Amino acid sequence: MDIATIIGIVSGFGLISIAIILGGSPAIFINVPSLVVVIGGTLAATLINYPLADVLSIFGPVRKAFFHKESDPGELIDSLIQFATVARREGILALESKASETEDEFLGKSIQLAIDGTAPELIKDILTTEVAFMEDRHARGQGILSAMGASAPAFGMIGTLIGLVQMLATMEDPSAIGAGMAVALITTLYGAILANVIFLPTAAKLKIRTSSELLSKEITIEGILSIQSGDNPRVVEQKLKAFISPADRVAVGTDAA
Amino acid sequence: MDIATIIGIVSGFGLISIAIILGGSPAIFINVPSLVVVIGGTLAATLINYPLADVLSIFGPVRKAFFHKESDPGELIDSLIQFATVARREGILALESKASETEDEFLGKSIQLAIDGTAPELIKDILTTEVAFMEDRHARGQGILSAMGASAPAFGMIGTLIGLVQMLATMEDPSAIGAGMAVALITTLYGAILANVIFLPTAAKLKIRTSSELLSKEITIEGILSIQSGDNPRVVEQKLKAFISPADRVAVGTDAA
Amino acid sequence: MDIATIIGIVSGFGLISIAIILGGSPAIFINVPSLVVVIGGTLAATLINYPLADVLSIFGPVRKAFFHKESDPGELIDSLIQFATVARREGILALESKASETEDEFLGKSIQLAIDGTAPELIKDILTTEVAFMEDRHARGQGILSAMGASAPAFGMIGTLIGLVQMLATMEDPSAIGAGMAVALITTLYGAILANVIFLPTAAKLKIRTSSELLSKEITIEGILSIQSGDNPRVVEQKLKAFISPADRVAVGTDAA
Amino acid sequence: MDIATIIGIVSGFGLISIAIILGGSPAIFINVPSLVVVIGGTLAATLINYPLADVLSIFGPVRKAFFHKESDPGELIDSLIQFATVARREGILALESKASETEDEFLGKSIQLAIDGTAPELIKDILTTEVAFMEDRHARGQGILSAMGASAPAFGMIGTLIGLVQMLATMEDPSAIGAGMAVALITTLYGAILANVIFLPTAAKLKIRTSSELLSKEITIEGILSIQSGDNPRVVEQKLKAFISPADRVAVGTDAA
Amino acid sequence: MDIATIIGIVSGFGLISIAIILGGSPAIFINVPSLVVVIGGTLAATLINYPLADVLSIFGPVRKAFFHKESDPGELIDSLIQFATVARREGILALESKASETEDEFLGKSIQLAIDGTAPELIKDILTTEVAFMEDRHARGQGILSAMGASAPAFGMIGTLIGLVQMLATMEDPSAIGAGMAVALITTLYGAILANVIFLPTAAKLKIRTSSELLSKEITIEGILSIQSGDNPRVVEQKLKAFISPADRVAVGTDAA
Repeated sequence: MDIATIIGIVSGFGLISIAIILGGSPAIFINVPSLVVVIGGTLAATLINYPLADVLSIFGPVRKAFFHKESDPGELIDSLIQFATVARREGILALESKASETEDEFLGKSIQLAIDGTAPELIKDILTTEVAFMEDRHARGQGILSAMGASAPAFGMIGTLIGLVQMLATMEDPSAIGAGMAVALITTLYGAILANVIFLPTAAKLKIRTSSELLSKEITIEGILSIQSGDNPRVVEQKLKAFISPADRVAVGTDAA
Repeated sequence: MDIATIIGIVSGFGLISIAIILGGSPAIFINVPSLVVVIGGTLAATLINYPLADVLSIFGPVRKAFFHKESDPGELIDSLIQFATVARREGILALESKASETEDEFLGKSIQLAIDGTAPELIKDILTTEVAFMEDRHARGQGILSAMGASAPAFGMIGTLIGLVQMLATMEDPSAIGAGMAVALITTLYGAILANVIFLPTAAKLKIRTSSELLSKEITIEGILSIQSGDNPRVVEQKLKAFISPADRVAVGTDAA
Repeated sequence: MDIATIIGIVSGFGLISIAIILGGSPAIFINVPSLVVVIGGTLAATLINYPLADVLSIFGPVRKAFFHKESDPGELIDSLIQFATVARREGILALESKASETEDEFLGKSIQLAIDGTAPELIKDILTTEVAFMEDRHARGQGILSAMGASAPAFGMIGTLIGLVQMLATMEDPSAIGAGMAVALITTLYGAILANVIFLPTAAKLKIRTSSELLSKEITIEGILSIQSGDNPRVVEQKLKAFISPADRVAVGTDAA
Repeated sequence: MDIATIIGIVSGFGLISIAIILGGSPAIFINVPSLVVVIGGTLAATLINYPLADVLSIFGPVRKAFFHKESDPGELIDSLIQFATVARREGILALESKASETEDEFLGKSIQLAIDGTAPELIKDILTTEVAFMEDRHARGQGILSAMGASAPAFGMIGTLIGLVQMLATMEDPSAIGAGMAVALITTLYGAILANVIFLPTAAKLKIRTSSELLSKEITIEGILSIQSGDNPRVVEQKLKAFISPADRVAVGTDAA
Repeated sequence: MDIATIIGIVSGFGLISIAIILGGSPAIFINVPSLVVVIGGTLAATLINYPLADVLSIFGPVRKAFFHKESDPGELIDSLIQFATVARREGILALESKASETEDEFLGKSIQLAIDGTAPELIKDILTTEVAFMEDRHARGQGILSAMGASAPAFGMIGTLIGLVQMLATMEDPSAIGAGMAVALITTLYGAILANVIFLPTAAKLKIRTSSELLSKEITIEGILSIQSGDNPRVVEQKLKAFISPADRVAVGTDAA
């Protein structure tokens, strides 16, 4: 579970709530029509913007931004070195049980392909195609979140304009102007909060997640091909360590022993 | 018909209408001069921006964004595999009836070229040229919509400034200031709604449609060339499945059987 | 003459004028100091921004955006095919009269080079250099218009700030605040109108014109080289038609016969 | 220590403080809830935006922007020429003491690798990998600061909107409107100051630092490889001087003698 | 001396001064604290943004934008053709006096290198390195000016917010609100003027100057190498004319005779 995202969302909303509560009357900040205009309008614009199937499939990547178990490249390399040792000693078929045990679906599939004796070029082809489509799917999810981050403040402004026009056109009692304007401004506030606390930061996180997931997948592909070609575990280790920073290498493989 | 675009437009305008009606006096939101300045000004700027012929030809691509029957690459591949089977068994001339039956104009033309015995390089050349001009046409439509999305809020602001100057310059009765400002703000509201509910999201949708249509056309070209060269249906299937995501492949061709 | 640009400018200013006149007192919208700040300031910034020679040479490209006779690639190809027929039948020297008749200066020069027996590589070199410098000239004109489109609203804001400071600092009679603010806002209005009706759309049109003029020049170069090498008119036709969209080809050359 | 950054920060805050103190009542500019919303909100958005480990590791690169001892490429080249002379005269092992003496960690490591007799390709490989990861780390630090520079004004606006809504909704005494609005605006002020005095300029400085550090590291790699291959000190000098501007070359090596 | 920049700056400030004087009380537009916040703040941000040495070295490139003698490529080519004639007739050493006479430092250095009998590849190497560092220096100057153009309006806004908070918090006499707001807005005005009249246009001019200076230097390098290789003056002329537009060629070399 990604702690930073959770802490960020909770503390972001928490701080805003505290600032509101300190002001004395939190009830004035709840306005259902404003919420409907901002959230509804943003969703409507997103539906025009993207095909229905894409909008519906956003929840997968977003859930990933929240609850993604950060895959540690170091641990992954350790596993692959271990697999290499097993394959070297007992033959590649001995990895069968590893393939079914691992929680990492992509790793499992990769091992299975190697066990099945698939030709190396074909393994590489199959896995890189899958990675390319994963990237594509994530880029789409990120695009939807960015578009929502641009739409939310716009609909916030639209809602505020509607409120201002209503207030100004029907203004009879000048003393009521304050309350009317307060309600009008709430829609802008909602749009700003949604964009800056939810949509824009999660879109950015999704992008970072994609690149770290990409790294893991590239390590997996390189490792499996190296294991299948019968490389010595030390060679596998050397090849895979090139993917991580010099500082991280110390904690991995034989250096950690 | 593209359901998401329709739902989006209808719900977008619906939500805004509800917010307006809940406020009590919807009539104050209808102001013909404001509408004339925003829509007229946007159209005027578009005419200066783009040649007349391009502006007139925008309706084709826009209609596509609304009423485009999403071409399913999976179905297209299924059709092409079926054509390959027929061509293998009864000869390529047997596809004549298929060419006239299909609703997909581009597919029909491709089959006809193959039946006519056109040289493969020439088929590829003719079809890719057509695809390139299609892309160009769409890019232009998208550019026009984006330009309108940038112009509409600008003319909204121009209209509001005109209204404010008129109100402020002739202000005698301070109590009338509210009504005057309400009318002035309506133009900004119109500009914001047009840009954020219509122009910008349809421009984005058009871009996504272009890339999915491009995929279909590339599959068609690859498939027809494969059929013409007398490839086995299984080979055709393998070649075409590389274009779609691993997840979608299961539902296509022999895997679906 | 480019109808769209003229219609756009006239209708843009027309609509704004109507909105102003409907409001009742058009005289309040004429303010010479505001006009001086916006137009003068924009010109001053442009002079700092660009060398004097470049600013003075802008009128050529701008006039082109307004009064450019849209060169029809189809007609151009028809002419070139006709020239090819003449050259085939009566020898390339028979094109001498055509070179002096044509209104298209670039085409005339190209024919003259071919008649003079200039080596093909040299013709290509001379003409492409000229096209490159034409592109460069247009890009500069476009850059100047874009810079003006960014400066005009900025100087509109500067003028409004000057007006606001004057009004607020000397405010004795609160009832005069409306008139003072109206005058201040007029400068912002001028900046917004100039940028959105004139500078930004003409800059965009200039860009589109450049690419269509480029196409014509490329067709001319290809055509002249083909004619000089003694190609059959049908071959010339085929080569040149590749430059235009499949839909437009029907109206050109032998297909139109 | 980087003097410019320190002068900039101190004078930036100094000037703002002076402007505030001259206004008479500095106490009104201290508002803890506003500070909490802006700083807290910016940190929350940063946590959603970036993985926790990245946010925690920002202090290293930021400290560098403040307290970085500007490495002078000229001095570095002088050192390397001196090392080359020693290595030429007394053999490469004589550099052992230099490696442990130098404060430049990267230079020390490079010398050690050369002394250990590591193969040149491997030295190059190890060092360029380290440089690539350094670049990556800095780019991430810069990205976080830029994101904070974008978040701070947004949360400033959110805080101001909260304050305005509270003030307007509960406004009973019109004479209190000024004080309420003053408090509301302070949040926007905080956001603007943080972004423009701290986040955005330090992000830019970090980028410039990265490129100057990169230059030093490239000079070091080139120099060490040249020394290891037994190059004459004059050759080492010539190779390394190509990295610095002609004007700076005069002060370095034999030219400075 | 660059006339356009001078005219632009003088007329820009002139127009703004006229608009201010016409308003009646120019003294209200002079406010030292506002000036200190905007100019001081912009300088402070620039110091954080860039190393001290870079900020100090900005005056060279900026002076160039103001007082640069526009080097005419045509004249330069004429000089080089003349040098080629002399070198052909009297030997390359006869250029010695030309090298010391010319005001163009780069040209003088190039001639000297040729006279010294430096190898052509080395001449090219030395001169292009110098040009690359010139480009780099200019790009940095331009970056600093652009950063100042972005900072000035931000500090204008910060100053205005400080003024507004002070005015609103201590507002006892409602009739004083106008004067206070006027003072507050002056800071925004200063920021807008500095950015739009000085920083942004000079940054743009510097960029254009760089590209024209680059052209001159490239012509010089090509010309000197051609002269050194003993080319006929006509060949030198032909080679160099390729760098300038067809329209400009008429006024240069033998065509002008």
